[in-house]
Amino acid sequence: MIPRYARPEMTAIWEPATRFRIWFEIEAHACDAMAELGVIPKENAEAVWKAKDVEFDVARIDEIEAVTRHDVIAFLTHLAEHVGSEEARFVHQGMTSSDVLDTCLNVQLTRAADILLADLDKVLAALKRRAYEHKDTVRIGRSHGIHAEPTTMGLTFARFYAEMDRNRARLRAARAEIATGAISGAVGTFANIDPRVEEHVCKMLGLTPEPISTQVIPRDRHAMFFATLGVIASSIENIAIEVRHMQRTEVLEAEEFFSAGQKGSSAMPHKRNPVLTENLTGLARLVRATVIPALENVALWHERDISHSSVERGIAPDATVTLDFALNRLAGVIDKLVIYPEAMLKNMNRFKGLVMSQRVLLALTQAGVSREDAYRLVQRNAMKVWEEGKDFREELLADAEVTAALSPAEIDEKFDLGYHTKHVDTIFARVFGEPA
Amino acid sequence: MIPRYARPEMTAIWEPATRFRIWFEIEAHACDAMAELGVIPKENAEAVWKAKDVEFDVARIDEIEAVTRHDVIAFLTHLAEHVGSEEARFVHQGMTSSDVLDTCLNVQLTRAADILLADLDKVLAALKRRAYEHKDTVRIGRSHGIHAEPTTMGLTFARFYAEMDRNRARLRAARAEIATGAISGAVGTFANIDPRVEEHVCKMLGLTPEPISTQVIPRDRHAMFFATLGVIASSIENIAIEVRHMQRTEVLEAEEFFSAGQKGSSAMPHKRNPVLTENLTGLARLVRATVIPALENVALWHERDISHSSVERGIAPDATVTLDFALNRLAGVIDKLVIYPEAMLKNMNRFKGLVMSQRVLLALTQAGVSREDAYRLVQRNAMKVWEEGKDFREELLADAEVTAALSPAEIDEKFDLGYHTKHVDTIFARVFGEPA
Amino acid sequence: MIPRYARPEMTAIWEPATRFRIWFEIEAHACDAMAELGVIPKENAEAVWKAKDVEFDVARIDEIEAVTRHDVIAFLTHLAEHVGSEEARFVHQGMTSSDVLDTCLNVQLTRAADILLADLDKVLAALKRRAYEHKDTVRIGRSHGIHAEPTTMGLTFARFYAEMDRNRARLRAARAEIATGAISGAVGTFANIDPRVEEHVCKMLGLTPEPISTQVIPRDRHAMFFATLGVIASSIENIAIEVRHMQRTEVLEAEEFFSAGQKGSSAMPHKRNPVLTENLTGLARLVRATVIPALENVALWHERDISHSSVERGIAPDATVTLDFALNRLAGVIDKLVIYPEAMLKNMNRFKGLVMSQRVLLALTQAGVSREDAYRLVQRNAMKVWEEGKDFREELLADAEVTAALSPAEIDEKFDLGYHTKHVDTIFARVFGEPA
Amino acid sequence: MIPRYARPEMTAIWEPATRFRIWFEIEAHACDAMAELGVIPKENAEAVWKAKDVEFDVARIDEIEAVTRHDVIAFLTHLAEHVGSEEARFVHQGMTSSDVLDTCLNVQLTRAADILLADLDKVLAALKRRAYEHKDTVRIGRSHGIHAEPTTMGLTFARFYAEMDRNRARLRAARAEIATGAISGAVGTFANIDPRVEEHVCKMLGLTPEPISTQVIPRDRHAMFFATLGVIASSIENIAIEVRHMQRTEVLEAEEFFSAGQKGSSAMPHKRNPVLTENLTGLARLVRATVIPALENVALWHERDISHSSVERGIAPDATVTLDFALNRLAGVIDKLVIYPEAMLKNMNRFKGLVMSQRVLLALTQAGVSREDAYRLVQRNAMKVWEEGKDFREELLADAEVTAALSPAEIDEKFDLGYHTKHVDTIFARVFGEPA
Repeated sequence: MIPRYARPEMTAIWEPATRFRIWFEIEAHACDAMAELGVIPKENAEAVWKAKDVEFDVARIDEIEAVTRHDVIAFLTHLAEHVGSEEARFVHQGMTSSDVLDTCLNVQLTRAADILLADLDKVLAALKRRAYEHKDTVRIGRSHGIHAEPTTMGLTFARFYAEMDRNRARLRAARAEIATGAISGAVGTFANIDPRVEEHVCKMLGLTPEPISTQVIPRDRHAMFFATLGVIASSIENIAIEVRHMQRTEVLEAEEFFSAGQKGSSAMPHKRNPVLTENLTGLARLVRATVIPALENVALWHERDISHSSVERGIAPDATVTLDFALNRLAGVIDKLVIYPEAMLKNMNRFKGLVMSQRVLLALTQAGVSREDAYRLVQRNAMKVWEEGKDFREELLADAEVTAALSPAEIDEKFDLGYHTKHVDTIFARVFGEPA
Repeated sequence: MIPRYARPEMTAIWEPATRFRIWFEIEAHACDAMAELGVIPKENAEAVWKAKDVEFDVARIDEIEAVTRHDVIAFLTHLAEHVGSEEARFVHQGMTSSDVLDTCLNVQLTRAADILLADLDKVLAALKRRAYEHKDTVRIGRSHGIHAEPTTMGLTFARFYAEMDRNRARLRAARAEIATGAISGAVGTFANIDPRVEEHVCKMLGLTPEPISTQVIPRDRHAMFFATLGVIASSIENIAIEVRHMQRTEVLEAEEFFSAGQKGSSAMPHKRNPVLTENLTGLARLVRATVIPALENVALWHERDISHSSVERGIAPDATVTLDFALNRLAGVIDKLVIYPEAMLKNMNRFKGLVMSQRVLLALTQAGVSREDAYRLVQRNAMKVWEEGKDFREELLADAEVTAALSPAEIDEKFDLGYHTKHVDTIFARVFGEPA
Repeated sequence: MIPRYARPEMTAIWEPATRFRIWFEIEAHACDAMAELGVIPKENAEAVWKAKDVEFDVARIDEIEAVTRHDVIAFLTHLAEHVGSEEARFVHQGMTSSDVLDTCLNVQLTRAADILLADLDKVLAALKRRAYEHKDTVRIGRSHGIHAEPTTMGLTFARFYAEMDRNRARLRAARAEIATGAISGAVGTFANIDPRVEEHVCKMLGLTPEPISTQVIPRDRHAMFFATLGVIASSIENIAIEVRHMQRTEVLEAEEFFSAGQKGSSAMPHKRNPVLTENLTGLARLVRATVIPALENVALWHERDISHSSVERGIAPDATVTLDFALNRLAGVIDKLVIYPEAMLKNMNRFKGLVMSQRVLLALTQAGVSREDAYRLVQRNAMKVWEEGKDFREELLADAEVTAALSPAEIDEKFDLGYHTKHVDTIFARVFGEPA
Repeated sequence: MIPRYARPEMTAIWEPATRFRIWFEIEAHACDAMAELGVIPKENAEAVWKAKDVEFDVARIDEIEAVTRHDVIAFLTHLAEHVGSEEARFVHQGMTSSDVLDTCLNVQLTRAADILLADLDKVLAALKRRAYEHKDTVRIGRSHGIHAEPTTMGLTFARFYAEMDRNRARLRAARAEIATGAISGAVGTFANIDPRVEEHVCKMLGLTPEPISTQVIPRDRHAMFFATLGVIASSIENIAIEVRHMQRTEVLEAEEFFSAGQKGSSAMPHKRNPVLTENLTGLARLVRATVIPALENVALWHERDISHSSVERGIAPDATVTLDFALNRLAGVIDKLVIYPEAMLKNMNRFKGLVMSQRVLLALTQAGVSREDAYRLVQRNAMKVWEEGKDFREELLADAEVTAALSPAEIDEKFDLGYHTKHVDTIFARVFGEPA
């Protein structure tokens, strides 16, 4: 987690105070359930809630942990300082530390997922708005970085929308994966605690009881969660690379928004760097880097070893905080992206109609010209454009062998941009679910 | 793809002949749709199907490709050799190579997913059978590799079942991710081909039309697919590590099946190595290694660059073939795993009742003994077990201070294994969905 | 290993026949050493060399392995078929399979490294030649994809040369890492074999004895080897991205060589795709993907587990074959890259001198103009260029406030390209080690 | 960077104050060089050193950056507040931000490497001491987790020593890789600054001038650095896994040091968890996770894009701080590891001599018994051990067919542990470079 690339709402999830708050709720709800089952006295369960509004003293808990070398025991000791050690004596009864730690982690990841889902909604809203805004803004489509056929800027935004919408569905599935809790004891047998305690705690925290846990909640769930964040990060990189390409000097079809006061911009108007999307490219690498350790965490020894723990102390905040920041930055970039439709047209026409050569080739063969001849005809006119800077359409119109096969109107039609945009509405309907 | 770790059904998917067969189907169905739309003559569409039962000559296609340097053109040229070049002249009209390549890849991945789903079913069946077989086979649960509390072998199988069942759901989702096709032309605008052609081809191949493609199908789909395989591989490792631990000399609670004739086994009965699960551990690393390149493939330049292609030529067969082999090997390992319940009991009793010390401690405090005293009482008896090899229960029964607080029957009860297994049926019902 | 991206010299290293040949040599040299030490009869050692020129029958060995389920035993059985089972009875005495397998793997990796070193030499030669050829070919340097200051194409080649030269040094170090052999028995104690056998075998195979082995050679060596290949692959990607950028339509400062006969090139001269460097980008991902599994292979259980083996069966051929192919492809791309110096100048002058605005700004402040004023002066002239397409130098020369601070000659000097290239020779001397 | 797994000396390197201090030194030394070259007045260079002992105000610099959105400019502005804006006006002249940032990063990484080298020395010292201490402590060697042949605990420490010693050499090489600096201007041409400034600054900071830079120092250097840290982390995991195995209940040949006061230890003496080495296993995953992003950072666009920057803000502190902590923890674990030689012997004799079956088999064949008969003889006695718990040596001595081939003394000799340890001194001499 890099402070520079962090937003407070998400970092708050990973602060000690939040963790202790969730621990408290797990313990208090567990006491309620045990009291309801008659395992502990009701007054003891009620007493725990005295700490409901307490801000736990993180420094004090750290102090105790320095002695006990055990974080959950340190917390429980501190809790007893608030509740009274007599009243608190049934807290955590029959539970194991991991019941608290793992359930807490999943509450945190679930909350993080909720923020990320809201982030995705912002990105989706921006993409949709820009897609409709530039639905008909024609620009050249490129394969291999080379001009291919015309497309529209709106289609570019629409495909990013479709990709991010898939990410939204993936993230919802990933959230469901980790929205489980476990209060099942030292090896998951419920030997010392009734399964109904787990049910109650989970219900109160918005989780599902883990069907079968050991000392821990199985880590394939977390692996899937981080893998999903890795896919989302890669999609961010995908959009970032597009923007970076559009802003490069020779293309300049779009620019990241540049605030008026930003130093250097007007003395060197050619030197506006796509630093936000370059940064997103790097952030994507950081989020992706959490995937392999999350996968390596799945294979634990027997009913658990604690190797996963240090990994998660790193990757859980790292991946969620960085992705949250990145999605917000991305939403801003898309929202404010300065788009230059004229530059798009200018770029497209760089080779004076040559991008239409394939259509002409096809038209000639459809008009009965042999493949070899059609190829030769296109080639000789294309070469004049390429080498002498002539206009492709004009050359074709002046070529008797071409006009013998195609009328001037037919030739003109090959240069009609409407030919390329005729299905844009159909595609938009597919993506945005609205009538074609 | 390592021949030694490959099964024919899966490798067949990745053979050139299969690829060409799928390409043929895409082209032939596309012709049908174009004929139906009146874009090409019906007889030309019908003519293509003359090649329906042809085994395409891979060597011949390679030969042509050596000249054209283009695989799809090479195939089309060869197809025309079968169909007749006149009849074949409308094949591929308005399409781009990627329409064929990407749709084909997704057909292949979908078929691979179907095999993997069947593999998972085998693994699940074996796990379920062994889970019920050993539902009540008690063994010690371990955290940190250290004895904790009793559990049962059936619970171990049941949790692997639950994990693999989650993997099944994930794989079904991943299959849906890549079960799309695209016939949308050079930059995805359908400029030269009607979207209904795509719809028809997809329908005939069991795919969904990609809502919005560029020259290619977006690679976030494939990233999610390979990430899912990586999670499944990690679960395989999880099971493999458990078996390897169980088979290690000092534990020896289970062994991979060892055929009677296998060299060396009976002259060195102590030297039966868990080579299958060690192998699975390695194979898991190989599958996992495909995840990052798949994520790196998402960000392509503009409407496509071809950097993803070489990656997929490697990882698509590698990941699917290796995972298929691994899942089958795993199913066999589980199915035939030789389990030693007596050894489990013997291991559990290694420290003569000491694993029950926590229960005794709890019982003493619940009986009104102060925490400090309870701790002291347990400690002094535990030390006799630890240092002198005494039996914990007997020592407790002989300790007047202990028996002052707990009756012999109460002490005995702490050593009752039924205490630990009382919720096994509940957990099985959660996992296997049957009545508790 | 993908056949399409493989060269025969490297794939030969990984063929079974090569492996068996190396196994033979290890066994035969070991017999020599044992005979020399008087452990086995000299005539038996000599007899083994009867198989010196035998081409081992891979199919036959596979057949035996199908029964024995042990590859080394299968080979030894087959060897005895050639040598005579009586004569061969001391072969492999006191050795363990891993002595043969691990020493063989390192021979293979060492040979692979030698090929890769030769590949790097080809790349280096091409880079050096092109660097000197274009030492003074000016083009715009770009940061963030945005024009910054002039540099030369030669400097670009020179920096790739320096990077690949570092890779050469790294690969030599990596080769040394894995050029060890071990003939130390079941757990590395030399219990059943004299250390002098190891010394002799290693000497004959060009290896160093592993100072301390267990059953296996430690895998940190291999991890370092594959990590190094991953770095080299990343450098390939670095060069590939540069070429891809240079070839994109709007930049077009260079193109991958396009053979005259290559289909489609002249009818669509604008559509020459940088497919080789896109391919290299993908191949780099594949090589890089072998690094993590190699790192995961380091931690083996006790004196060995066999989890590393399946991984190495995959990554050893994959990484070396792919990298060999990629380096050769890269050498060809560099060697034949078509470079367009005029396009470089044209691109540089796209904003009519604006790239020199920083120099002008600096000159004004050095001439005593305040920072604020200097900025204002540059800005107002820059804006005319940016918005009206004027020429920056001309505008400056026509701006009285500017000429009050700088003489026309001083202004002109700011647009002198020699200013930017004056240290090129110094840098070349640093890189190529020749006099400045 | 996780505070819990961080040591102050290493975290200090990554604090803003350290960074600003290094920036200051770069700028001040650069001024000295420029003054020496007559480019700027000597008094201005001298004036900069007024800030030599200033503690830069991080909050103030952040405040300025919030306005300028540029960290280096913010620092320079703050520096001018100390030096005087008139005196400071030549600071940074002709330089580009990256000159400062990249040179600073390499100073930081070099210092981090120095700490890590010292850490490795601690690990090496501990390993060497324990190796000699337990040079002759016999324990069973294990392959596949299965008993193989005897080895000694000293050999285990010695091989970890050899591995870590290789890591030391690798880290020294990696340190040399990143100990370069660059003061070469906007695109690396030294257009605005004399190369001698770079030489002076590098010399004063203990760096080598980067032979050829662009706007940045090439990232293959950093990739190699992080890859090396990844290898070292994997070696830590290797040692950690060994300790974890030794401590598991059924093996219990060693335990991590357990302080007397540590809660729970004496009431549950069987429940001492190897949490330090489990933690090291997880930390190794975290360090390893930085390798791929470092490799992805190599390919930058043209003379630089800034995608690498956010990655390095994460991985540079993460990898170095975590590895530093892990190496120190490892040194402590090794130093204080509690070793149980009796348990080692007990484990080895678990199968009453059966581990010697291979030696007996060999002896029988060497005594002229046919392979088949020898196998049969060993097998029938082994089975009595395996199934009836008999003692292998006693059974052999009582088997007339065995004693017909081998004398009792010869049989006894097969059970002599000295046979297995006879080359320990030779191996130690190889590892520690001392006389055999």
